[in-house]
Amino acid sequence: MQNYIENLCKKAKKASQIQLSEKNINAVLEAVANSIERNKNQIIEENRKDIEASNLSKALIDRLTLNEKRIESIIESLNTIKNLKSPVGEVIKGWKLKNDLEIEKVRVPIGTIAIIYEARPNVTVDAFALCFKSSNACVLRGGKEAFNTNKYLSTLIRDTLETFNINPDFLTFIDKTDREAINHLIKMDKYIDLLIPRGGESLITHISYNATVPVIQHYKGLCHLYIDESANIDMAIEIANNAKVQRPSVCNAIETLLVHKNIAKSYLPLLAKKFESIIELRGCEETLKILPYVKKATQKDWQTEYLDYILSVKIVNNIDEAIEHINQYGSRHSEAIVTQNYANTETFLNKVDAACVYVNASTRFSDGGEFGFGAEIGISTSKLHARGPMALEELTTYKYKIRGNGQIRQ
Amino acid sequence: MQNYIENLCKKAKKASQIQLSEKNINAVLEAVANSIERNKNQIIEENRKDIEASNLSKALIDRLTLNEKRIESIIESLNTIKNLKSPVGEVIKGWKLKNDLEIEKVRVPIGTIAIIYEARPNVTVDAFALCFKSSNACVLRGGKEAFNTNKYLSTLIRDTLETFNINPDFLTFIDKTDREAINHLIKMDKYIDLLIPRGGESLITHISYNATVPVIQHYKGLCHLYIDESANIDMAIEIANNAKVQRPSVCNAIETLLVHKNIAKSYLPLLAKKFESIIELRGCEETLKILPYVKKATQKDWQTEYLDYILSVKIVNNIDEAIEHINQYGSRHSEAIVTQNYANTETFLNKVDAACVYVNASTRFSDGGEFGFGAEIGISTSKLHARGPMALEELTTYKYKIRGNGQIRQ
Repeated sequence: MQNYIENLCKKAKKASQIQLSEKNINAVLEAVANSIERNKNQIIEENRKDIEASNLSKALIDRLTLNEKRIESIIESLNTIKNLKSPVGEVIKGWKLKNDLEIEKVRVPIGTIAIIYEARPNVTVDAFALCFKSSNACVLRGGKEAFNTNKYLSTLIRDTLETFNINPDFLTFIDKTDREAINHLIKMDKYIDLLIPRGGESLITHISYNATVPVIQHYKGLCHLYIDESANIDMAIEIANNAKVQRPSVCNAIETLLVHKNIAKSYLPLLAKKFESIIELRGCEETLKILPYVKKATQKDWQTEYLDYILSVKIVNNIDEAIEHINQYGSRHSEAIVTQNYANTETFLNKVDAACVYVNASTRFSDGGEFGFGAEIGISTSKLHARGPMALEELTTYKYKIRGNGQIRQ
Repeated sequence: MQNYIENLCKKAKKASQIQLSEKNINAVLEAVANSIERNKNQIIEENRKDIEASNLSKALIDRLTLNEKRIESIIESLNTIKNLKSPVGEVIKGWKLKNDLEIEKVRVPIGTIAIIYEARPNVTVDAFALCFKSSNACVLRGGKEAFNTNKYLSTLIRDTLETFNINPDFLTFIDKTDREAINHLIKMDKYIDLLIPRGGESLITHISYNATVPVIQHYKGLCHLYIDESANIDMAIEIANNAKVQRPSVCNAIETLLVHKNIAKSYLPLLAKKFESIIELRGCEETLKILPYVKKATQKDWQTEYLDYILSVKIVNNIDEAIEHINQYGSRHSEAIVTQNYANTETFLNKVDAACVYVNASTRFSDGGEFGFGAEIGISTSKLHARGPMALEELTTYKYKIRGNGQIRQ
């Protein structure tokens, strides 16, 4: 198995050293979009095989499913990425030293990027498109739940590359879905420059602790919404509803609601009514005094990314307690406050340690597409290199080009 | 031991959460400079203890030594860092979405940064100053060779912090010099956000393979100078001399010289004369035909960072062979070409995979101070987050602050 994985990574590394023009890259992306459009029935067929073989919760089936609408959005995303400007070659900064040395800080591709992901098959296309547009080769290892869909999409892309006489290893698909394949892949630092694991807690922890390849985690989204004392109650209802209900299976949905004690009595009954028969609430003791029929939250609830129609609720004495709770339990992903108090917005924005911190808006906006990046390869919960939604720019590094005329150091 | 290290890291993390004004930070840096000036005799005395106890090569003794001149340069560096603008709070980008959400990408400190280094005691002060100026706490673990010097300098800094009523754990000094201390430190991902190891190959490899804290390597500098067919010979002599002889113990000095076959006969004898009785040359077979008295280079020579008065020499058939050799053996640090051919400059700048790529200049300029960064915490040979000389900006990450007025996702 090790040889098998090593050989695939070696081939990907070789592909990554090929320099393609942006015109060529765009032509490939367009052809991939056409190929997906042409073969959409077969994609849905492969996806149906995966869904039938799976034994997942409703929320996870939602992640796995590709229907016509979602395929259209994959194609749309390909076109958007094609139309973005490649960041490669951008001069980030340039300056001249007193000795006339000219220094340019120039964006270059990272090289070979391995992405380990779970049930969402659109990642296969998005990840390839973003890596390819930024002149990187990608090594994809999707979850077994989506194996047929991922395999078929990868084949469409590799076939397209070949019609352009481009090395198809720009997309290397790892067709082994057991944990052993991952254990070898994460040690391939000789060939892989960056590892992006997306998925559940145990997978990411396992990878982070054992990888020799540098890792940018796409860890869980344990996101909070804090309803401040001064919040507009209608807005607080709408934002909570959007952040929890619109798509609970995704990482930027909220899992815990923090409510200031002075607004809880007026706010929580209205929210409970809105959520009736949709969301299961689990409350702290103070919450239970207002909503006595609600299940009691345990310590474990504060640590849980439900990815489901469940929300834990905690009443806090002040904003500092809310921030403390978030910095203790949050996954540094997306956090929001609803407030009309200016000082509290600044406190929240500065003191909450997370990639995306919102005032009076839904956490659901944490997304490369929504941010205007065209698409995203995921949302980094790491602090280094890239934080929050990652797209083209985050898939590059830089080098310094220094031009002289004989300068030596004194 | 584990508890001891964990306790130190926990305290450092706590210090890192304190938000200080830049005015306060600058006052501390100024006071540290004054304290070093006031206590320079004692610093030299402590350094003498280290030198006497050590059993190092001439080049390594040079790294370890602090004399009046080097102390002056530490103080100068402190003043320079003080006068730099802190990058924290900088709005890197800002934009407004169609739905009126305002997104700001803002620079924030990384948090707690651990630096593992070897014999150079100025790192103690530089690392603290750069971390502190960018609002990070640092955890320092220097080599045993410089223990007395490092310990004394750390005490001066911690005492200064205390006179300002600032938590002295902004500089946490690990006073255990055995490998076990490192083995615990690199697993403290709960408290340490970034690990910067500087040093020899075995140390860095050990750390990279075992750390759970994200690592930016400051790996060896196996740097090359390529003398192209079209090089100006005088310039090629001066640059080779500067890049090898000026300070062979540092990472941006060259270890291997690559020479185009068509210039070798006129160039190498002149260089050999210049290097006579200073530098030991080790040549490939073709080199030996021109310089028959030179020792033969083995495969091992191409892989060796001598850090000493030794240079390996290889004659190549063309620029592609030179680039291939560099990309195979180089440590992605600093690489240079001497040429008068325009196309070759572009080929070299684009195809050599290194943090700093030079045309007609000495590799010795790879340095935060020379680049105009004020100082440096080291030179990253990693590709992620930061590459090449690292200073203030490279010690920050970012967060997105998003301000809305009730936006929910459609």
